[in-house]
Amino acid sequence: MEKKVYKDLSREELRQLHAQLSKEYADAKEKGLKLDMSRGKPSVIQLDMGMDIFDVLNAYSDMRNIDKVDVRNYGVLDGIVEAKHMMADIMGVSADHVIVCGNASLTIMYDTVSRSMTHGVMGSTPWCKLDRVKFLCPVPGYDRHFAITEHFGIEMINVPMTPQGPDMDMVEKLVAEDESIKGIWCVPKYSNPQGYSYSDETVRRFAALKPAAKDFRIFWDNAYSVHHLYEDRQDEILEILTECEKAGNPDMVYEFASTSKISFSGAGVAAIAASRDNLDFIKKSMTIQTIGYDKINQLRHVRYFKNFDGIKAHMRRHANIMRPKFEAVQQVLERELDGLQIGSWTNPNGGYFISFDAMEGCAKAIVAKCKEAGVTLTGAGATFPYGKDPMDSNIRIAPSFPTPEEMAQATDLFVLCVKLVSVEKLLGM
Amino acid sequence: MEKKVYKDLSREELRQLHAQLSKEYADAKEKGLKLDMSRGKPSVIQLDMGMDIFDVLNAYSDMRNIDKVDVRNYGVLDGIVEAKHMMADIMGVSADHVIVCGNASLTIMYDTVSRSMTHGVMGSTPWCKLDRVKFLCPVPGYDRHFAITEHFGIEMINVPMTPQGPDMDMVEKLVAEDESIKGIWCVPKYSNPQGYSYSDETVRRFAALKPAAKDFRIFWDNAYSVHHLYEDRQDEILEILTECEKAGNPDMVYEFASTSKISFSGAGVAAIAASRDNLDFIKKSMTIQTIGYDKINQLRHVRYFKNFDGIKAHMRRHANIMRPKFEAVQQVLERELDGLQIGSWTNPNGGYFISFDAMEGCAKAIVAKCKEAGVTLTGAGATFPYGKDPMDSNIRIAPSFPTPEEMAQATDLFVLCVKLVSVEKLLGM
Repeated sequence: MEKKVYKDLSREELRQLHAQLSKEYADAKEKGLKLDMSRGKPSVIQLDMGMDIFDVLNAYSDMRNIDKVDVRNYGVLDGIVEAKHMMADIMGVSADHVIVCGNASLTIMYDTVSRSMTHGVMGSTPWCKLDRVKFLCPVPGYDRHFAITEHFGIEMINVPMTPQGPDMDMVEKLVAEDESIKGIWCVPKYSNPQGYSYSDETVRRFAALKPAAKDFRIFWDNAYSVHHLYEDRQDEILEILTECEKAGNPDMVYEFASTSKISFSGAGVAAIAASRDNLDFIKKSMTIQTIGYDKINQLRHVRYFKNFDGIKAHMRRHANIMRPKFEAVQQVLERELDGLQIGSWTNPNGGYFISFDAMEGCAKAIVAKCKEAGVTLTGAGATFPYGKDPMDSNIRIAPSFPTPEEMAQATDLFVLCVKLVSVEKLLGM
Repeated sequence: MEKKVYKDLSREELRQLHAQLSKEYADAKEKGLKLDMSRGKPSVIQLDMGMDIFDVLNAYSDMRNIDKVDVRNYGVLDGIVEAKHMMADIMGVSADHVIVCGNASLTIMYDTVSRSMTHGVMGSTPWCKLDRVKFLCPVPGYDRHFAITEHFGIEMINVPMTPQGPDMDMVEKLVAEDESIKGIWCVPKYSNPQGYSYSDETVRRFAALKPAAKDFRIFWDNAYSVHHLYEDRQDEILEILTECEKAGNPDMVYEFASTSKISFSGAGVAAIAASRDNLDFIKKSMTIQTIGYDKINQLRHVRYFKNFDGIKAHMRRHANIMRPKFEAVQQVLERELDGLQIGSWTNPNGGYFISFDAMEGCAKAIVAKCKEAGVTLTGAGATFPYGKDPMDSNIRIAPSFPTPEEMAQATDLFVLCVKLVSVEKLLGM
């Protein structure tokens, strides 16, 4: 059957197509696939790439950092100085704006919201004492961000994403009008799930926001700052702390980053960057919460990567592993779906995800059909607050864990399900 | 001058004594000591003892645990199974009551209080929504416990410690009467700072408490469970989870422990133990707060210590390092202060501290005098909520960091200051 826009097909053509696709789907189920493209999990080969880090420290290592602090003992609340520099380089900020924490930036974000609930923000009323607290959520976005705000009973407001970032007209208007809006979740570079990077104008408009709430903060999750896929197609974004300073809003942003997808997921080093006043306020709670984070792991990372060039070199090898997986997905999507007008997808220059938009009302059914045939995708709706995609359209594809061959197989099944569900939708089945 | 009870001395004798002690103190200041016995910090030699742990993992290690989980990747929220067993053995509980977390039990305690503030306890009203929340604080106790409750605006009520544990008559009465009492801080074994261990009767009375508040919890910080000083003088305490179960109060206790003073301070592994219902509730927040703690460090610890016998053997070497420091302090205290009735002190079988009680109203002055001559002690009052020792009497001595020789030197100065301040007190100076 020649490639034709689905909605231009006659009912008879659709019926024939449906019969054919149903047969193909039945055959596909027979294959007994068992593939997971649901989460942004690094692959084994990617993890193997960093194994030399375990030879960095041995029984005879000097366990003092450049400040002659014994990293094995208590102390140094905000991270050893060389780890601050490492994380500062990753975020493109200066080291004196950085606190290095434990193994996960997600935990820092959770703790930041939690602290705002119980202790407010730099002297403001604790959010738990307020009748309403709201966050803006660019959609589609990262489900674990939305899970944090939902967990604390914070009301979430969807803001549409564009290839240049969130709809800034809407963001500006809402934060200026509503004092109960206390934050916005952002993944500014290679966004989750679309892989969009905020334009310079978007970043500048963020920095220049005039929120009604003095305790409004931008939660700037710079998770993929060095996670390019290509040598010749790389996004760069403006550094938000500097832009906020320039705009007279130095305290308006918290930036987060980690090495979870550089060294090891769950055993890396995470950090927060913010203005000195923010950091001072954060440390007041942090000094009660901990005597210090794992400085040995900080030292291990610094000695392994040596400097930012070391990280960039590591991430080039990382890109070489990731790129074929992304390309495998793109090839199948283009070959099978181009011109059918039953779906659109992103083709990012970095990050961990491809975002797919099916025809309205089809995402849940596609994910279910994939699951039934052995391919697990992120749950439909997961990219929206409360798990509710109002269009039931968006699906996040995570190519990182399977091999390129598996990704091609999984995507073959995916496009088949997209076609089948789309035809059923058009037939009103 | 012969040894005589100070308060039986005549004013003239006291004046002579004061002159002599003042001269000795002036001489001591000349020495320019610089010693720190303020915190329970492991010494370098103690940290060196565990360096082989860095040879446990290398670039060619199998990074899968016994369940074949790749510890480098995301997943396993509550800790790898062999780490659960390790921490369970340390606490004397069963592994299915354990969640293994990050590097610090202090953080787990903070997070536990914080979660109770924002989300309540197993369905109860969040504490931040209540007018008053109170904690019982056995005194003297651990300053960082008190700092957590103070940070969250929780009112603290002093409960006197005895060599058998907290005054249980008072505990029973208060928790039964007052629904706003939501918790009690306990260090049940080798308590901080006295080194007392709770008697079986005390533990059973704890387990049988009838608190007015359904969301009352015992915060059982079992920090020194394997931290004996002697082979032939070891305390053992009843296992609280089992006792609570037997008494029909299975949910009433959270137990905390870590390897901070077994492997490395700040780079160890920490855990919480509690009933299944408590753990299920905790995991609801934990699954939002993190994708998982550092499983690589968990695996490193388990492969290094192998089993509980490995930990016990390690702690015997630990005791060999610590014992001479404690003995150095005890010898000086006995030699210099015995029979003078100007102070009493504990002689614990384990833990990290010796507790000293000076004459009423003398602790601050003694600590200040020591500081002036180069010996840093824990701030007077630190062992009490709000930093306020109503008797200004208690001083915590932490012998772990200096060498035995330095501890003897430091204690020489300490007893001199105790004598001097006591004489001044008796003279009404």
